[in-house]
Amino acid sequence: MSNGEQVQKTDRTTMRRFPDRGSYETTVINAILDEALVCCVAFEHDGQPALLPMAFWRTGEHVYFHGSARNRMFLDLIAGGRCCFMTHTIDALVLARAALHHSVNYRSVVIYGVPEEVAGEGAKLAALEAFVTKVYPGRWAEIRQPSESELKAARVFRLPVTEASAKIRAESPTYYRDDLHIPVWAGLVPVKLSLGTPIADEHVPATIATPEHATHLGRVWESARVGRVVAHSSAPASNADY
Amino acid sequence: MSNGEQVQKTDRTTMRRFPDRGSYETTVINAILDEALVCCVAFEHDGQPALLPMAFWRTGEHVYFHGSARNRMFLDLIAGGRCCFMTHTIDALVLARAALHHSVNYRSVVIYGVPEEVAGEGAKLAALEAFVTKVYPGRWAEIRQPSESELKAARVFRLPVTEASAKIRAESPTYYRDDLHIPVWAGLVPVKLSLGTPIADEHVPATIATPEHATHLGRVWESARVGRVVAHSSAPASNADY
Repeated sequence: MSNGEQVQKTDRTTMRRFPDRGSYETTVINAILDEALVCCVAFEHDGQPALLPMAFWRTGEHVYFHGSARNRMFLDLIAGGRCCFMTHTIDALVLARAALHHSVNYRSVVIYGVPEEVAGEGAKLAALEAFVTKVYPGRWAEIRQPSESELKAARVFRLPVTEASAKIRAESPTYYRDDLHIPVWAGLVPVKLSLGTPIADEHVPATIATPEHATHLGRVWESARVGRVVAHSSAPASNADY
Repeated sequence: MSNGEQVQKTDRTTMRRFPDRGSYETTVINAILDEALVCCVAFEHDGQPALLPMAFWRTGEHVYFHGSARNRMFLDLIAGGRCCFMTHTIDALVLARAALHHSVNYRSVVIYGVPEEVAGEGAKLAALEAFVTKVYPGRWAEIRQPSESELKAARVFRLPVTEASAKIRAESPTYYRDDLHIPVWAGLVPVKLSLGTPIADEHVPATIATPEHATHLGRVWESARVGRVVAHSSAPASNADY
């Protein structure tokens, strides 16, 4: 990988297994964050590990997510302090000659940190506008923006993309030279995520056309995933692929 | 939902928000577990919330996952005891008339529990065979099965599907009656996950055909997701959609 701007490695973001798959480059990390739509956030809830899947977005040097002020787990997420954020894309299935060389090609980002609440009506509104605009360019001006009471009922958090790392597998199947004689198909099967035909609800008048952002997302989603699986050779390996 | 066999609700699996979206039915939970390929497991690692994304599979009343015996985080997952497992599918984007009614249609399963290590060569081998066979029917007999040393280097865990719940949003956009006049498109955009054209690696001889399991997965994946977005009307609502 190139020598762009990097985030600082820490002990827990330093990859020991397959360190070549790791990246601490801001451009690599941000590209994954900008393509993915859903994340998982792990935190402590009632003294137990818990996690929430959520939609998220990135603006500048933070990832943002939001939820209801009445969500008990969200309250713990603030109170508990530390959390672990993760998002990933699955790019291909990896079919190998040996059972334990089967794998998937993926791109993932992990961030450790303390979520910070975005307070104040103006800041919350700006954050939500950034979210809608990122997923659906141009839509914010066409829809009803949040009312004062809706804004009060919503919580917005952000987490700095500081203690972060990316991990990417974008390779052909691992193999042992001794396995090459096995008469079985091996290679990559791209996993594609795409949008289907939009289904208008029953209140949309016939005069309103389907907007472009309902058939083609602003984010790079569709193309990037498929492009990622272009195979490059892996040297004969002597360790299993996990 | 129907009145099939249910898992026992506990305090932390009881849904307070949108309880109608929750299900404790074994058939509903298992259908989601059998369709998804990747899960997230949250646990405590060095006194911090951590999470691992992993491929997983279900056999009977357990979900299984595996990894390297050299993975530090896996060691903590055993030592730490409790974990929170989550898997989800994203079925559709939900474009609404109000900013805070935007959402996604999804199906998710959460399981709390203590992961148990699958010990013994025979049990590990059987578990791995079940995994390969589930994702790639017929493939196990064609590939090289794990050697003794590969089996030693792998850890397999299982978690009972006992303290579990499913949550499903499969609805049209939420709306307030007062927002119906807004001249904007609203509805569902299906999110489709499908397989692309397989890419053989450079060592596959021309005499070996692409197997059916590389073009059509054994699991229900492709069809089920799209089917899920068939819209049904939601009554005018008076609360935001999260």
